[in-house]
Amino acid sequence: MTSAATMTSAFHYHHRVQFYETDLMRIVHHSNYLKFYEEARVAWAHERGLLDYQKLESAFSLAVIETRVFHHKPAVFGDHLKIEVKAKLEGIRMIFAYRILRDEDVISTGKTVHATLDLNLKLIRPPQNIRSVFNKEAELNPWTETWLLNLFA
Amino acid sequence: MTSAATMTSAFHYHHRVQFYETDLMRIVHHSNYLKFYEEARVAWAHERGLLDYQKLESAFSLAVIETRVFHHKPAVFGDHLKIEVKAKLEGIRMIFAYRILRDEDVISTGKTVHATLDLNLKLIRPPQNIRSVFNKEAELNPWTETWLLNLFA
Amino acid sequence: MTSAATMTSAFHYHHRVQFYETDLMRIVHHSNYLKFYEEARVAWAHERGLLDYQKLESAFSLAVIETRVFHHKPAVFGDHLKIEVKAKLEGIRMIFAYRILRDEDVISTGKTVHATLDLNLKLIRPPQNIRSVFNKEAELNPWTETWLLNLFA
Amino acid sequence: MTSAATMTSAFHYHHRVQFYETDLMRIVHHSNYLKFYEEARVAWAHERGLLDYQKLESAFSLAVIETRVFHHKPAVFGDHLKIEVKAKLEGIRMIFAYRILRDEDVISTGKTVHATLDLNLKLIRPPQNIRSVFNKEAELNPWTETWLLNLFA
Repeated sequence: MTSAATMTSAFHYHHRVQFYETDLMRIVHHSNYLKFYEEARVAWAHERGLLDYQKLESAFSLAVIETRVFHHKPAVFGDHLKIEVKAKLEGIRMIFAYRILRDEDVISTGKTVHATLDLNLKLIRPPQNIRSVFNKEAELNPWTETWLLNLFA
Repeated sequence: MTSAATMTSAFHYHHRVQFYETDLMRIVHHSNYLKFYEEARVAWAHERGLLDYQKLESAFSLAVIETRVFHHKPAVFGDHLKIEVKAKLEGIRMIFAYRILRDEDVISTGKTVHATLDLNLKLIRPPQNIRSVFNKEAELNPWTETWLLNLFA
Repeated sequence: MTSAATMTSAFHYHHRVQFYETDLMRIVHHSNYLKFYEEARVAWAHERGLLDYQKLESAFSLAVIETRVFHHKPAVFGDHLKIEVKAKLEGIRMIFAYRILRDEDVISTGKTVHATLDLNLKLIRPPQNIRSVFNKEAELNPWTETWLLNLFA
Repeated sequence: MTSAATMTSAFHYHHRVQFYETDLMRIVHHSNYLKFYEEARVAWAHERGLLDYQKLESAFSLAVIETRVFHHKPAVFGDHLKIEVKAKLEGIRMIFAYRILRDEDVISTGKTVHATLDLNLKLIRPPQNIRSVFNKEAELNPWTETWLLNLFA
C-alpha cells in the first residue's frame, strides 16, 4: 500500500524501446503506444496498492472502453522513454491520461477510459478501495498541466 | 486502379480473430484493434490503387498523427469480424473511420488521422493521386451514417 | 468434420504479411513466424473437425512444449505466403511441421510440439478423437518430403 | 565498452511479464519468449560494447537463421523473470543460449543462431570486434552447465 506521502509525486514509469517494437518505417509501430500506456497503468495500480501481481483474482482488471493517442514525435529503437500517468474518477468511469517523454521531447499524449463490470458484464460502480485511491490521487495530483487540458479540450 | 463503379460500394475487409490476439481476460487485447484498422486501411489503399505490395517505394506510407478507438463489445477467439472503412481528406490530413461488426453486433468504432511528411519530416500536402482518390471516395461514400456522426461529435 | 477424401490433400493456409509484422530491418520480425504457424495449425484443426470456433470449451487447446524455426529467406510487407502443415502423433506428443512458401521460394521450415494436460497440468494421452484424426492424417499424408526429413535430421 | 572484469560474470537480464503478453489460456503466449530472448540478447550486446542505442548504423544487427525454444513451465502475468544469456562463435555463426528462471523454477531454455550478411545478403564472417567479444565471452563463461549441454544434445 502506498502512503499519502508517495502519492504527492505524480507517478511515472520507464520503458526502453525494443527492436521488436519497431516497423519498416524504422520507428515504433503506433499500436505499441497502447502497450506502453498499459505497462505504466499496471505499474501505477501496483504502486498504489490496487494490484498484487501474485493474486490476480483480487486484481485491478478493468474493461477498456475507449483509447485515444496523439503522436507528436516518433520514438525509435533504444529510446529510453518516461511515461507520466494521471488518474481520476468521472462518475463510474476511470480515466487515465499519459504523457510520454524522451528527455525534453514530448513523444505522445493520450488517455484511456475504463470501467468495472459485474459478472453479467454490466457496468457497475468501482469498489470502494478503487474509488478511494482515485479520489486521493486526483486530490494530490490535480489535472492542471497544459497537456492535460489540451487532451480533453 | 479501381473504377468509379467499384468505389460506389463502401469498402470492407474481413479478419478472423487469432488465438495470439487474445489476453487473459479471454477477449481480444485492445491494442489489436489498431492492427485490425491497419489491415483494413492497407487493403483499402490497395483496392483503391494507392498501394502496390510489390513496390513499397511508391507506396502509401503515412505518418500516424492520432488514433481513437471505442470498444462497444468484446471480440473473442475465432470471431469473424467485418471491418468497414471510410476515408476523407480534411485540409492536409487524411481521416479514416472504421466500424467493426460481428454479424449485427457493433464491436468497435474508431478513427485514425494521417499525414504525408517531406524528407525533413515536415507536414506536406498529400500528392495529387492521393487527393484524387480521397475526393472521389468522399463523394461516392459520404459520411452520413449515424455511427460516423457520433464518432466525431 | 472432414471426410477422408479431403484429408488426402495436404493442408495449407494463406497469410498476407501485414505492415505491423515488419521490423526496422524492413523484413518480418522472426517472432511472427510462430504466429503464422499457429494460424495455420488452428485452421488445420478447424478443417479436421477438432476445433469449433464457437465452442472453445470443447476446443483443441494444447500446451506448447517446443518450437523450432529455420529462416531460409526473409519475408516482407505484402508477401502472400502459403503455409503447408503436416501433423503426426509420437507417443503422447502431437508434432506439427510447417513450410512457408512465397511462390517457389522457401521462406521458413519449422516444427512445434504439443501435449494435452490434465487439470493438474500433468501430461496425459490425447483423447481418442484427436488420436484418430492424427493417425488418419499421417496415413494419408506421410512425412516423406525432403524438407521434413531435413527438419528432423 | 565492458571490461574483462565485468565479463567474468555470466550476463542476465530481467523482464516483468506484461498483461498484453498473456493469452486466453492465462499464460504467456509462446511467441513472446522469442521477444524476451531478443531483449536479453540486445541488452547483452549493449553491455558488451557491441551496440550503441544512439548509433544504430554501427549496430549489432544480425540475420536470425534459427530459433529453438523449450517450454518447461508456463509464465504468467506479473512474473519477474530472470533471463540468462550465453554467447559463442561457431565458424561464422553466432550462437546464443538462454535460460529463463522464475526464482528457482526453470521456465524456458532455448537458443538462437545468427549471421552477418553483406550488402548482397550473402553470409560473411563477423567483423573483428564482434569475433573478439564472442571469443572472450566463451573463454570467461564456458558452456559447461547441464542445461546448455541438454540444449545441444
